[in-house]
Parts: sequence; structure tokens; C-alpha cells
Amino acid sequence: MNNFAVKITYDGTDYCGWQLQPNGISIEEKLVSAIKSVTGDTVNVYGSGRTDSGVHALAQVANFKCDFAHGENKLVAALNANLPDSIRITKAAVMPDDFNARFCAVAKTYVYCIFNSSIFSPFYLNRAYHYKFPLDLDKMNEACDILKGQHDFSAFMASGSSVKTTVRTLYELKAEKCGDMLTITASANGFLYNMVRILAGTLLYAGNGKMSLNDIKTVLDSRLRANGGAPTLPARGLYLKEVYYPKEYEDVWEKA
Amino acid sequence: MNNFAVKITYDGTDYCGWQLQPNGISIEEKLVSAIKSVTGDTVNVYGSGRTDSGVHALAQVANFKCDFAHGENKLVAALNANLPDSIRITKAAVMPDDFNARFCAVAKTYVYCIFNSSIFSPFYLNRAYHYKFPLDLDKMNEACDILKGQHDFSAFMASGSSVKTTVRTLYELKAEKCGDMLTITASANGFLYNMVRILAGTLLYAGNGKMSLNDIKTVLDSRLRANGGAPTLPARGLYLKEVYYPKEYEDVWEKA
Repeated sequence: MNNFAVKITYDGTDYCGWQLQPNGISIEEKLVSAIKSVTGDTVNVYGSGRTDSGVHALAQVANFKCDFAHGENKLVAALNANLPDSIRITKAAVMPDDFNARFCAVAKTYVYCIFNSSIFSPFYLNRAYHYKFPLDLDKMNEACDILKGQHDFSAFMASGSSVKTTVRTLYELKAEKCGDMLTITASANGFLYNMVRILAGTLLYAGNGKMSLNDIKTVLDSRLRANGGAPTLPARGLYLKEVYYPKEYEDVWEKA
Repeated sequence: MNNFAVKITYDGTDYCGWQLQPNGISIEEKLVSAIKSVTGDTVNVYGSGRTDSGVHALAQVANFKCDFAHGENKLVAALNANLPDSIRITKAAVMPDDFNARFCAVAKTYVYCIFNSSIFSPFYLNRAYHYKFPLDLDKMNEACDILKGQHDFSAFMASGSSVKTTVRTLYELKAEKCGDMLTITASANGFLYNMVRILAGTLLYAGNGKMSLNDIKTVLDSRLRANGGAPTLPARGLYLKEVYYPKEYEDVWEKA
């Protein structure tokens, strides 16, 4: 029995999210079913974290234990042959037995895409959030500087979530524009529920002037989402871009 | 009655092509119907040219005569409010009465997208052709040099087409790679039926070694599609990127 880890990219549009759910088709369900088709076994799959309905992934990571003796490349091909085109395995590796995609993850990067032009492109439907008014990119990056670092991000968490601690470290938060596409990149040692979509909404409000830098500081310090004011931007603009692991595991990925 | 011209971008996936057809929904039909909703009139719409089922456009051009007194920006907004999200008007202009989007066009640029990586991205389904084996970009550009210029392109036209002349001038033909996306850009004073998709197939065969530069020269000189050997690549990778008009008309676009 090997402990396989896989990297997965998916268009989340038609799914109820990563996690198995009674009502709706999840990415996890499709993966479990593909593994069963390939190996005959119904396995437990551990994802690095949930993504919500409509959220996309460029490199989600998951692991599962199974017998498959034909090597990693064959596993990738066999799984892809049993998955819908909207979900692709891009890599597989045999990991140490103690590797768990969720609990070993030390950091993640998400990207939020805002199509910032008066008319939306048909090629970004369900793939970006459309915002038609001007945004001040410099102001957005000044807001990033306030939010970066270690903070209690209670004010940037969907209400009703329960976690042990609401302190997270944002290693990177930046807004960039290339053509009509404005992207917000956020890297942290962990994210609270809806945190990236609330951060993106807050940066949007910094960019359109609905919130001053002082307002944002006040909201952060208040530790109350109700004090936020900025919207949670829709799931369709969000991409899980990368999951990071300690060097011992990254080295295994490198060699695979 | 004004002679309006519009620029249109569309995802061609769900359409039977640009042109009105008895079986299937066309872009033209959707545009005629939107104009009727906005102005009350059923008008004739003249596109710069047909695009086949599944072919996309970044800036198709069409013109039509109607009464609309609220200015170009309002026309754009009103038409978009009556079009599906997969079709967007990006610009409108009042043109001289003699402007016809098809007959006044002096050149066009198409782009063909090949996703060149072992595993296809879910984000380019229906938006690019997937080719998983290595391609020699230099060799493809050497083939471009053979095909560029004025030639009788009979060997690069779908059989059964009838046109007055099969001589065209390819002003530009080049292959570029950015990440996993290989793009072929073709600009000409006109294109024969399926010409870009056959050119793309020929460049693919130059890149994978199935055709030598000499083979390509022989096919071009033969003036026979049957001699071609290279496939017509699928519609889903093709984008109409730009249509060019004489300066007098381009100046009107500029001011709009």
C-alpha cells in the first residue's frame, strides 16, 4: 500500500466544491470514483483544504493510500482517463507514509481575478469577477501593506465559523494588473473561512474609494466581520494556486 | 437611418457559427434579435465574414442600418442587455453610408491556439486545441517563412469551395509560445475556406516532423488540397482577432 499524493487542477464551475456532500457533485467524489475505477478500492482522500462551490484550483493537493504498481505517470494517465475534462491530475508522487495533504501543509497561495473593464469578456464567464468601474491600483497595494503580516483576522472571516485561533500570517498580499485583468495574490500560513474573498472585497473598496486606509485599519483592529462593510466577492474569481509543504515532502515532488 | 458598425467578441462554443442557419443558433441571429428588441426593427446585418461553428471572435465587425438616437455608448449597453453573456458588443460607431463590414475589409488577423503540454488545462476546454507531444517552434517558424507572401493557396482551402481567385497575400504568419500555449498568428488580405485551420495543421506537422520544409513547399506548389497531408485543426482553437479597414473608416472607429 503506497501513500500517493496528487496535484489537481479543476474548473469548479459545475461542482458543489471540493468536499463530498450529500446534495451535489464534488471534486472529491469524482476523484474517489476515478481511484475506484483504476484500483478497485474505495479509499479515503485527504485534500489540502476545502474549496467552495465555484472556486477553481490550479494545483490542489490530495493524498490517498492504495495499491498501484505501475508507477506515478501511469497513475496520472489512468486517473485522468476516469475523470471529467474539467478535473485533471497534473502530477502524482509516492509520499512518506506520514504525509497528509491537509495537516502537513505549511502555506497556501490563492489568486483572486477581477476583470476590470466596462464590458465583460465572454472568455472569463465563471472564471473572474467583473467590475466595470475604475480601480486605483496604488491605493489597493497600500491597503495590502496594512493587511500583510501577522494579525487576528476575525474581521475577515465569514461569521459562524469556528476555529481554534483566528491569527494568521499573510506573507504576501498584492494587486497587479495585466491588460483588463486585475489579480490579487494572497499567501499565508492558513486562511480563515472566506478570508481571501473578504480580503478581495476590502481591496476592491480600497480601489474604488468606498473605504479609506484608516477604515481598513479600523476594521482589522475591530476583529468583527460585522464591522467590515466590504463585500465577500463571489467564488467564481477565486483560484487555489499552490500548497506548500516542508522541504522533505517538496523534495519528493521534485523527483516525481 | 444611421449605418452603425459594431465590434463583437464571442465564445463560439455553443453556436452554429456566425451566419444565420435554419438548424442551429447563430451569432448573427442573436444580434438581429437584440437589434429588434432595442429598435423594434428587423434589420439586415453584414458581418466581415463567416466564422464556423465553434470558432471564437475577439473583434468581429458587423454593420446594419437603423434608427437609434441615443448615441453609440447607449447602443452598446442596450444591445448587450439583450444578448447572451457569451456575445458582447465592445464598441459601436456611426459609419459613412457606404461602409459595408464585409466588402470594405482589407485584411484580417486570426489566431490559432494550441495548448502544448502533456495534460490539457480544464480552463482551455473548447478554447484551444490540445497537442501533447513536443513541437519544434523554430521549425514551425521556418515553415511560416515559406508560406508568407503572395501565393495561390489552393492547397490550403477546404475542397468544394468556390471563389474567383485562390491567390492571397499572407502579410504575417508566426508561431510563438508563452507557457504551455502555442499561438499561430496569421494576417492576410483574405482567407480561403478553412485556410487558417489548414495552415495551423501544416505548421503542427512542421513542428512534429511529419512534414519537412520541402514537403510543405511541394504541397503549396501543387495547388491541391488532396496533396496536403496535414490535418485541418479543429474550430475550437481559432479566434478572429481583428478586421482592418481603409483609413477613412478606421478614423471613424478611433473617434467613436
